[in-house]
Amino acid sequence: MIGVFDSGVGGMTVASAIEQVLPDKQLIYFGDLARAPYGSKSPETIRRYAIENTEFLISKGATLIIVACNSAASVASDILQSTFDQPVFEVITPAIDRAIAVSRTGRIGVIGTRATIKSGVYEQEIKRKRTECKIFSEPCPMLVPLVEEGWLNKRETKMITRRYLHPLKMKNVDTLLLGCTHYPLLKHLIQPRIGKRVKVIDSSHEVAKRLHDFLESRPELSRSLEKKTENTYYVSDVTDAASMTAQRIFGRKIKLNKI
Amino acid sequence: MIGVFDSGVGGMTVASAIEQVLPDKQLIYFGDLARAPYGSKSPETIRRYAIENTEFLISKGATLIIVACNSAASVASDILQSTFDQPVFEVITPAIDRAIAVSRTGRIGVIGTRATIKSGVYEQEIKRKRTECKIFSEPCPMLVPLVEEGWLNKRETKMITRRYLHPLKMKNVDTLLLGCTHYPLLKHLIQPRIGKRVKVIDSSHEVAKRLHDFLESRPELSRSLEKKTENTYYVSDVTDAASMTAQRIFGRKIKLNKI
Repeated sequence: MIGVFDSGVGGMTVASAIEQVLPDKQLIYFGDLARAPYGSKSPETIRRYAIENTEFLISKGATLIIVACNSAASVASDILQSTFDQPVFEVITPAIDRAIAVSRTGRIGVIGTRATIKSGVYEQEIKRKRTECKIFSEPCPMLVPLVEEGWLNKRETKMITRRYLHPLKMKNVDTLLLGCTHYPLLKHLIQPRIGKRVKVIDSSHEVAKRLHDFLESRPELSRSLEKKTENTYYVSDVTDAASMTAQRIFGRKIKLNKI
Repeated sequence: MIGVFDSGVGGMTVASAIEQVLPDKQLIYFGDLARAPYGSKSPETIRRYAIENTEFLISKGATLIIVACNSAASVASDILQSTFDQPVFEVITPAIDRAIAVSRTGRIGVIGTRATIKSGVYEQEIKRKRTECKIFSEPCPMLVPLVEEGWLNKRETKMITRRYLHPLKMKNVDTLLLGCTHYPLLKHLIQPRIGKRVKVIDSSHEVAKRLHDFLESRPELSRSLEKKTENTYYVSDVTDAASMTAQRIFGRKIKLNKI
């Protein structure tokens, strides 16, 4: 099975993208709602949670791990890769490679939670791969609660989105990386506010495409992931708001199994 | 020692009010930042966390517990009172008694997190004590992240505050209960938006007064709580935003000890 974890339901944008690109693969999801959000927590705490979540997915039969949480991917990918034998994918690298490929001016904007932006992972990785790039990052901590409230079209959400994007617009970025799995749900507000010519990179789609390519070159592993039953969605806590956000992401009702 | 716990640093408004009313008492605080916020979590999860937090405070020498978190107080007070021998105070009852005492029309508004409002605890308790009261409640889930961001005077915060209070204003409440320990930091926005004639009840002050009265009638217990050293503030995680909010609440720098 493909095991996907996130701090909450935001990572379901990744699960949903994988379902679209690899509809015949078995997927298991874990959303750590009881300890969400990770974005406001320290690196040490996030690393501990990431290891526990991976252990849970492996215990349920996952043979491939997707870190669908930018906060965890930015501070815990290394430790997961060195701790576990299973291949570990994360939402950051595929999005970075895409941004580097499409940016013409090399002026790239990155938005994410405080933890992700503070980690500097996007900036370091982009500069390592294409040294002449100029990276401009903005933490956008209010966007996750706004998405989780379902305020996807409220005036306040538009104002807050504009407030966050304004400095990046002033820097004339030609590419904007959505460094948080919740943000694709606000893409309809982000694209017009950053400017229609700016390429907005959605990390969920990029990691799904990367996984697709990886499996194409590994037919045996690919066959072992074949779908046998419905995909399962586990969470460490259930709330009405989480169920509604899950439904919003998949466009259908999702059964959340509490563990 | 007086042991105070909250999901994060919001409960420090309670600790601060206790320091003002009982400056000679020893206080120990625990903010469960690693698992914050509680407001979006289920009652079972909140109860489990509340028991663990109380055990921690008792292990550090607390002989009296203050639940400085409305989400925990609304769903976990009973279980704490039946599980532990130590007296347990919480932020809800004193505020309710005050609201009942000051309301002339009996039309009382309550604002809080989703968990607190959904629990119906304010409505039930007020009606039990004064049956003819009419209670109007509004969940205000965006206010905690706004306070934690330090956006205390931003235009968006004013708009969101107005949006939440509007239905209560339309109901002509004469008293408004702040059912979340973060909200006193927004009182300067709340009071003008709900109307200057409406009495705004701050639960932090009410629980501090209640504790003061309780200790007056128990001189022996009161003596045992005498201050011997600086008050200590423990947290399960440290972040810059939490440190800044703590500083904002106390008006001075607060050392957060991570456990």
